Amino acid sequence: MERLVLHEYAASGNCYKVRLTAALVGQPLERREYDILKGETRTPEFLASVNPNGRIPVLQAGDRFIPESNAACFYLGDGSRLVPDDRFERADMLRWMFFEQYNHEPNVATLRFWIAFVGEDKLSDVERAQMPGKRAAGEAALKLMDEHLRGRDWLVGDRLSLADVALYAYTHVAEEGGFRLAGYPAVSAWLGRVADRPGYLPMAA
Amino acid sequence: MERLVLHEYAASGNCYKVRLTAALVGQPLERREYDILKGETRTPEFLASVNPNGRIPVLQAGDRFIPESNAACFYLGDGSRLVPDDRFERADMLRWMFFEQYNHEPNVATLRFWIAFVGEDKLSDVERAQMPGKRAAGEAALKLMDEHLRGRDWLVGDRLSLADVALYAYTHVAEEGGFRLAGYPAVSAWLGRVADRPGYLPMAA
Repeated sequence: MERLVLHEYAASGNCYKVRLTAALVGQPLERREYDILKGETRTPEFLASVNPNGRIPVLQAGDRFIPESNAACFYLGDGSRLVPDDRFERADMLRWMFFEQYNHEPNVATLRFWIAFVGEDKLSDVERAQMPGKRAAGEAALKLMDEHLRGRDWLVGDRLSLADVALYAYTHVAEEGGFRLAGYPAVSAWLGRVADRPGYLPMAA
Repeated sequence: MERLVLHEYAASGNCYKVRLTAALVGQPLERREYDILKGETRTPEFLASVNPNGRIPVLQAGDRFIPESNAACFYLGDGSRLVPDDRFERADMLRWMFFEQYNHEPNVATLRFWIAFVGEDKLSDVERAQMPGKRAAGEAALKLMDEHLRGRDWLVGDRLSLADVALYAYTHVAEEGGFRLAGYPAVSAWLGRVADRPGYLPMAA
């Protein structure tokens, strides 16, 4: 099996989704940890050799690097049951993965990071002014997922796909960002289904 | 050939990238225009029948809908030369498409929208406070592209892919958002290469 290295910060949902995908397809990963709170992904070495964008996760395959969590998940899931064979479903899976990065992560994940990792008292005025907007947008993203999941087991088609993995990562820890999952019963039930899948790996593993 | 309808706002780069992809693969598109400045994508009808997320573009294939511009591009390009055959390159293409939606569009496209469409005097205080951050992040995204494109013709591999289409859309009109493309010579040369491709379609077409 290919030797793969995940450059990561383990508490990041974006990194967790790559580990979860790897676990679900049975691909071992070596892990290399960076403390983003100490700027370890902004050093000249990291920018020159791992990711010029200064972000984790980055999946390393040999001497090649794949930044962007959902692209790394696609690399791992490509050719597996996590990527649908049907052309429409494959695009629909990506639709949810782009939704995740555009509508969900910048709100649900950023509020979790600001509240649970940085600390509200350490935020800049510009950041603090964005909190109500991010709260509303995060609730809207969860509501949209909840309405979509009523009467469905999975986001796309009739089985688990990378869309579920990508959105599971930050949704299942959304309460750390001040969101109340009890208000989203279809999402809560779906979180349970994901965690029941063979090969499931918890975030702290 | 499949009958496809693009629900769109023509001046949006996100909509243009879907039209450009369709043109490059020779797929005709019917077009249905909505005025986002008048809230035409937030009506109960639009939310119920086209996209519960209230956004364009949405690509309609029969009675099924694909929101998210880059997912719609993937649907159109899937199986064509715009999506690489090689597994690493396919993931690398998606890496640039996720970069586009996370690092480029929320900065380069949003400043263009605020300045050239909404008008700076109509922005809220929270929006105005975000402008310097979006300016810096947009410049960083363009700089990263410029450094990557030095010595390369295309973002991924040795030919045009959806990564180029996705990033072309808002980059080639970045000056409407106050960015100076002359400062990014490798990006400027690459813009010219994209516009020279057979099947290329200008934004205003």
